[in-house]
Amino acid sequence: MNVETRLARLGLKLPTAPQPAGMYRPALLAGGLLFISGQIPLLEGELKYAGRVGAELSEAEGGEAARLAALNVLAQIKAELSGFDRLVSLVRIEGHVASAPGFFYQTRVLDYASNLFVEALGEKGAHTRSALAAPQLPLNAAIELVVTAEVVGGRGQGPD
Amino acid sequence: MNVETRLARLGLKLPTAPQPAGMYRPALLAGGLLFISGQIPLLEGELKYAGRVGAELSEAEGGEAARLAALNVLAQIKAELSGFDRLVSLVRIEGHVASAPGFFYQTRVLDYASNLFVEALGEKGAHTRSALAAPQLPLNAAIELVVTAEVVGGRGQGPD
Amino acid sequence: MNVETRLARLGLKLPTAPQPAGMYRPALLAGGLLFISGQIPLLEGELKYAGRVGAELSEAEGGEAARLAALNVLAQIKAELSGFDRLVSLVRIEGHVASAPGFFYQTRVLDYASNLFVEALGEKGAHTRSALAAPQLPLNAAIELVVTAEVVGGRGQGPD
Repeated sequence: MNVETRLARLGLKLPTAPQPAGMYRPALLAGGLLFISGQIPLLEGELKYAGRVGAELSEAEGGEAARLAALNVLAQIKAELSGFDRLVSLVRIEGHVASAPGFFYQTRVLDYASNLFVEALGEKGAHTRSALAAPQLPLNAAIELVVTAEVVGGRGQGPD
Repeated sequence: MNVETRLARLGLKLPTAPQPAGMYRPALLAGGLLFISGQIPLLEGELKYAGRVGAELSEAEGGEAARLAALNVLAQIKAELSGFDRLVSLVRIEGHVASAPGFFYQTRVLDYASNLFVEALGEKGAHTRSALAAPQLPLNAAIELVVTAEVVGGRGQGPD
Repeated sequence: MNVETRLARLGLKLPTAPQPAGMYRPALLAGGLLFISGQIPLLEGELKYAGRVGAELSEAEGGEAARLAALNVLAQIKAELSGFDRLVSLVRIEGHVASAPGFFYQTRVLDYASNLFVEALGEKGAHTRSALAAPQLPLNAAIELVVTAEVVGGRGQGPD
């Protein structure tokens, strides 16, 4: 079952991969790894979740923000690799949660993203994770995910 | 001299590798590198150092927290690689220090971890480092270490 | 045109690569990647930009700090690789901006670094980026850049 079929069963679909916010690339391949620029909860160019979890946003809203950022990660992988066939596995998720003082449950917020990755990618969704609290994030985003994945084939190779 | 003998001479021993706090892996191999999930100062499932350095914790207590997080990194490496023979070297340590406003000595806190890695691993303990201040960390942990290492052999290969 | 000629045309020159602030290496090669320790806006051992963007520093001053940190990244690459011939490309820039509460334009600050990398390195300056806000940084630095690059040849190999 492919990734988009799995997502459809969850009532989700891949967004358009967000454009970079400056003079950098959305993703790059090096050393058998795919490095993806930080993804925030944008949808069609608009930030959907602004503010800090534990203040302007509830934990569940933070979780929805993490899921949307995770969908953008998947959209970037698809755009860079022309699909998911060359993806071996996710490898590392660094999850930054904009957090009010005294909010210590970043791992519960990021579980929404971790669960989505596993539901959408199956075994390829396995990953290590680091949960971190930020005082704020660019554009006042609630979540930023910095993801590294393992891929088959290097730069300039087609899908195989 | 092996790692556990070196630690014993320092009066230390490896803790049990902490379980992940969600649907992710403690460590994954990809591209000749070992990616380890963020490690905090847990011992037998209990957080030993809570709060911010420069407020609830002194710099020395932050340093002890960094050492315990570093021991958990070593425990994860041992668990993933069935020992330290396949470890070529540590490569990158990102050290996040929960910090009170106005506390600027994250590098001194993280030196406790850097020194432990070199004492325990010898030449294999060499690493690059990035010191960062966090307003807080998950579970109110004082320290989080995000570590990447270089290894011999890929997924599914036994020790060699 | 080489990197230092390009920089000279911009009125810039490479600083001396800063010494590590503790028991760690400025850069390490592993798996075809070069990992560089976090770089801050030091010049000849002195911190040139202290404080938070949006409070003690303006956005433009933050940008100058990001450029100086980027020059230090280039200086570390040159020192580790004995020049830029073995550099294939930058791969990932994690940019941490010490930020006053309510400051959300970390991407504009980091564009100064991204643009410098592309101006100095040409196609080799391509990179992915993650912009993050920090409450403060070590030594009260305004900026810290954590950079990963792709290189030709492993440890112990000369330039080729």
